[in-house]
Amino acid sequence: MEEPTGWLAVLRDGFSAVGILAFAISGALLAVQKRMDVVGMAGLAVVTATGGGMIRDLLIGATPVAALVDWWMLAVALAGALVVFVLHRWIERLDRPVLVFDAIGLGIFAVEGARKAIDFGVGPVGAAFVGMLTGIGGGILRDALANEIPAVFRRESRLYLLPALVGSSAAAAAVELGVGSWLVLGLLALLVCGLRIASELLHWRVPALRT
Amino acid sequence: MEEPTGWLAVLRDGFSAVGILAFAISGALLAVQKRMDVVGMAGLAVVTATGGGMIRDLLIGATPVAALVDWWMLAVALAGALVVFVLHRWIERLDRPVLVFDAIGLGIFAVEGARKAIDFGVGPVGAAFVGMLTGIGGGILRDALANEIPAVFRRESRLYLLPALVGSSAAAAAVELGVGSWLVLGLLALLVCGLRIASELLHWRVPALRT
Amino acid sequence: MEEPTGWLAVLRDGFSAVGILAFAISGALLAVQKRMDVVGMAGLAVVTATGGGMIRDLLIGATPVAALVDWWMLAVALAGALVVFVLHRWIERLDRPVLVFDAIGLGIFAVEGARKAIDFGVGPVGAAFVGMLTGIGGGILRDALANEIPAVFRRESRLYLLPALVGSSAAAAAVELGVGSWLVLGLLALLVCGLRIASELLHWRVPALRT
Repeated sequence: MEEPTGWLAVLRDGFSAVGILAFAISGALLAVQKRMDVVGMAGLAVVTATGGGMIRDLLIGATPVAALVDWWMLAVALAGALVVFVLHRWIERLDRPVLVFDAIGLGIFAVEGARKAIDFGVGPVGAAFVGMLTGIGGGILRDALANEIPAVFRRESRLYLLPALVGSSAAAAAVELGVGSWLVLGLLALLVCGLRIASELLHWRVPALRT
Repeated sequence: MEEPTGWLAVLRDGFSAVGILAFAISGALLAVQKRMDVVGMAGLAVVTATGGGMIRDLLIGATPVAALVDWWMLAVALAGALVVFVLHRWIERLDRPVLVFDAIGLGIFAVEGARKAIDFGVGPVGAAFVGMLTGIGGGILRDALANEIPAVFRRESRLYLLPALVGSSAAAAAVELGVGSWLVLGLLALLVCGLRIASELLHWRVPALRT
Repeated sequence: MEEPTGWLAVLRDGFSAVGILAFAISGALLAVQKRMDVVGMAGLAVVTATGGGMIRDLLIGATPVAALVDWWMLAVALAGALVVFVLHRWIERLDRPVLVFDAIGLGIFAVEGARKAIDFGVGPVGAAFVGMLTGIGGGILRDALANEIPAVFRRESRLYLLPALVGSSAAAAAVELGVGSWLVLGLLALLVCGLRIASELLHWRVPALRT
């Protein structure tokens, strides 16, 4: 399966940019909450927005990693930090759009991550794992650097890892079975996005052991 | 030195699986202690069980990393999380077997890590370092994600890094000197395992500066 | 651009060793502060001193990473831990020289990191990012393992990331434009070092959002 070209590439990169922006905003917001300075805001924005893709590329051996080559990703991540710097007084009113943007990013990262892993010779199970990590890895690095337990692991969290895993597994299976057209992959990203938003609206949660 | 085949490979993978299971159990247990949900239990189990091998493969350039190719490792790690989920009320009585299984894992990871590093062109000193990291890296990632100082670095800890380093150094030396047969490597893994268990039974500890 | 040879290589490695020593001392000191044992001191010294270079080599695909090949780096890092172990009562009086040594390390890592990234086919923007990370990455890993928010992100911190970024950006530009002789790169490392020390002496700080 070849890398997309023409308007398909524009579409994919456009949605990726939306996700990168949302991930960066979540990083910069946590930095403010943790009393970091603007360097911390920019740093945590970049880590959150590009960390998942870096983990993906390291694990599958796609070096230099994408964020070093397509450095518009770094620029979009810094723009996310700037948004928080300028709009911090009004940002709470933006939490609905940020949730939607973040869900778009989760969907496109999980599906694209699985596809890229298969492109690099990984089998379908490994590719499903890599795709899931592409979606959640940036947020895990963000929380680790902010000295917090990863949000995706906390018992009060809504579903985050599972929608990503559903999408990355379906994408890996589709590509493996030869039906992973760009249309199918796009619909799967949409499915992840929908599951993620539904999980917030409908208060879905997974069980935890009582301790 | 070639990868083992036949019953040798089965033996190595069998002991690896025992270690992966024990590492995964320690990850899932810490997740419960930290009030994570079942996603956190599964996530921390996988990170603890496969993290050391991923660090090894990243540092020596063996990509895609082993856990993506031999995905039975992911399955065994998830089984470890399931064990904790089902047996959590009785798990305290299991701490002796878990200690032994963990020591087996430490031994085989440290020795195998050093051997694989030399296979990938790393010199003996670097290989000893990589082998040690293969043994302790998963636990370090586990503690970092659970927002704890790594257990191996704490002053109340028994020996953990040092048995791994003894085994990985001896293994690297043996392979370098051409006497690293599978029998020798197996005995070195057993040595690591013994040193580790002895350190708990005999309360061995390293010094710390008074502060 | 070729790797330096002869006295140029000695010069670069000598200054690198000075930086590695200072980074290792900062790691071992934090380990003592966090009540770790000598294993923790050695571990945190090695992570702080070699972590930035490892991150660089992983992101650009230069594996096995440098610290595994040039293992004198591991030895110098352990020497840094030994310095803290032996001199801990007098180490507070050493904080001025350690600051200067650390600034030398920051300069040479940032500039060399950018140069090496370009050598591995990374473009100038990506190379500036990699060089900056080479300088600050070890300290970020140190703080993450010690369960602290990275010092470079904290609002009470002086400039650290920005001097590294200035130097790595200028180095990437110079190499890209074909004027990146060893003399120019050496002067840029000196500039980073000077900016870093000036930031401490003159109490430079970046703004933070009031929260």
